[in-house]
Amino acid sequence: MKTTRLEAFSDGVLAIIITIMVLELKVPHVVELAALKPMLPHFLSYVLSFIYLGIYWNNHHHLFQAAKQVSGGILWANLHLLFWLSLFPFATDWMGENRLASTPTAVYGFVLLMAAIAYYILERVIIAREGRGSLLPLAFVNSWIAGGLYAFVAFLWLIPDPRIERQLEKH
Amino acid sequence: MKTTRLEAFSDGVLAIIITIMVLELKVPHVVELAALKPMLPHFLSYVLSFIYLGIYWNNHHHLFQAAKQVSGGILWANLHLLFWLSLFPFATDWMGENRLASTPTAVYGFVLLMAAIAYYILERVIIAREGRGSLLPLAFVNSWIAGGLYAFVAFLWLIPDPRIERQLEKH
Amino acid sequence: MKTTRLEAFSDGVLAIIITIMVLELKVPHVVELAALKPMLPHFLSYVLSFIYLGIYWNNHHHLFQAAKQVSGGILWANLHLLFWLSLFPFATDWMGENRLASTPTAVYGFVLLMAAIAYYILERVIIAREGRGSLLPLAFVNSWIAGGLYAFVAFLWLIPDPRIERQLEKH
Amino acid sequence: MKTTRLEAFSDGVLAIIITIMVLELKVPHVVELAALKPMLPHFLSYVLSFIYLGIYWNNHHHLFQAAKQVSGGILWANLHLLFWLSLFPFATDWMGENRLASTPTAVYGFVLLMAAIAYYILERVIIAREGRGSLLPLAFVNSWIAGGLYAFVAFLWLIPDPRIERQLEKH
Repeated sequence: MKTTRLEAFSDGVLAIIITIMVLELKVPHVVELAALKPMLPHFLSYVLSFIYLGIYWNNHHHLFQAAKQVSGGILWANLHLLFWLSLFPFATDWMGENRLASTPTAVYGFVLLMAAIAYYILERVIIAREGRGSLLPLAFVNSWIAGGLYAFVAFLWLIPDPRIERQLEKH
Repeated sequence: MKTTRLEAFSDGVLAIIITIMVLELKVPHVVELAALKPMLPHFLSYVLSFIYLGIYWNNHHHLFQAAKQVSGGILWANLHLLFWLSLFPFATDWMGENRLASTPTAVYGFVLLMAAIAYYILERVIIAREGRGSLLPLAFVNSWIAGGLYAFVAFLWLIPDPRIERQLEKH
Repeated sequence: MKTTRLEAFSDGVLAIIITIMVLELKVPHVVELAALKPMLPHFLSYVLSFIYLGIYWNNHHHLFQAAKQVSGGILWANLHLLFWLSLFPFATDWMGENRLASTPTAVYGFVLLMAAIAYYILERVIIAREGRGSLLPLAFVNSWIAGGLYAFVAFLWLIPDPRIERQLEKH
Repeated sequence: MKTTRLEAFSDGVLAIIITIMVLELKVPHVVELAALKPMLPHFLSYVLSFIYLGIYWNNHHHLFQAAKQVSGGILWANLHLLFWLSLFPFATDWMGENRLASTPTAVYGFVLLMAAIAYYILERVIIAREGRGSLLPLAFVNSWIAGGLYAFVAFLWLIPDPRIERQLEKH
């Protein structure tokens, strides 16, 4: 199998995942601008997932420039990656709707982690087939993912903890 | 007609089907991890359908490497296959929401069966046009489908029967 | 502009339209097989729209084999066609949910008609640009559309009139 | 990176955005033709967004005919554009559901504006890389966007102000 059809299929899945997340942004029933304020955590979750998926799409493309042919192993490692990425809309939605409460945020982090592991497996499978020459894009990819994780942590600290806020609202 | 556009269209439809199933995973309104537990059968249904559609996409690709040209018959046999595959999200959702109750599971099995038959018809139509030389990928495909069906049966037995569970909960 | 990107975009839109219609098939909350019976008109509407969109995709492909280049006029005539096709899920859903009641069915017919007109305009724009040589696929296309309309009328008569049924249920 | 994969991915995202907007057109529960009347503002919003996205798709294609290669900057400028375009369904839906009330319409205008800015940034990044020769399609693009904005303003005036209507209904 040539890599082109696998890339086209992955592009399709990624394009859909990145777009259907916006369906979860429920339209408020009021027409005031203030109605958008409680949506802010959800919106920021959407932005974050959009960036993550953009990074994955970017890296995915670079990775498959290293691959010449698609074996059964590469195909399933790729589907495994797409599976974890397909859970992004669900995890984003749960985290966003609950204003970044700790459990949904941990689940989101878990999906992120599993996607990173799936990506790593895909890399290894391609390297095992293509040889050491394909090691080149690896460092590039890892630094991107690392950068993304740093941005994620930073993002968590920028938003005031909703549990603290709720405590404050009680008093 | 060249096979490329038919493959691109099928890829598009398959990519959408595989991804919209995740829209049916309704986000729980609680933030506890326990909220994910009742979603487990639905989640497992999603995983199963994801694997099935992955197998179909894989086989579909192999099949069209054997085809050189697309006749009207091949085009409609392909749309017939896509039709049954498009019912996967509905069947997955119904089975998943009802914790694998017998009727929805049977309907799911029926959709699986019809997709397998549609795939078989597509194979036959291509073989009728391309001649015996295209018989090569056939065995490969069948063993995959058989393997998938075995996995499905195994999966059914791994999950405790929800009706038994419900009986137990009553006492 | 080459026709390939326009075809790829149209394929994408058609693949999405044909697939999201299935999202409107709401999963019943009961697990009995009888729960699927009231869904029958909706399911048949889905089948009908699936076939129609398949016919359009097929014809669209044949049409663009005749076109060599994409002008601004062809591009907008194509988007005009995609617009009317994009209303299929809405019209299918309204007709299906109301068991083929007369007004929704008439609206569905109107969308069909507008799509056929949009297709005719697209044909004319391509012919005006490409010359008489591109007239070849025209007859083929029209006979398909005519056939589809006949099937639609036949389909309407196969289903007992829901208003008659409702009258009968009263007595 | 070649531009083809970036174009294919952008096509996918645009095709999905343009199509999922129709999912927001909620099917009325009555079967009278009058049920479609309150949907008119929503429907017109859909038509407007459809035209806008068509313009963007058209321009996007022309823009990437000028680009030979995709740098990291072009890739992220493109994702930035897709991000704002992905908010079209949300903004369209909010504006449409509230019969073009002033706040949602302003938010819609804001999303339009940000998309136009993102498009401008993308143009600049491509020009910075490709040199002055790629300035050619610029004027063409701008005049289209300007034309679209004029149409939007005209559209706003064609529809009677819903706030005025509501006042009239009170008396």
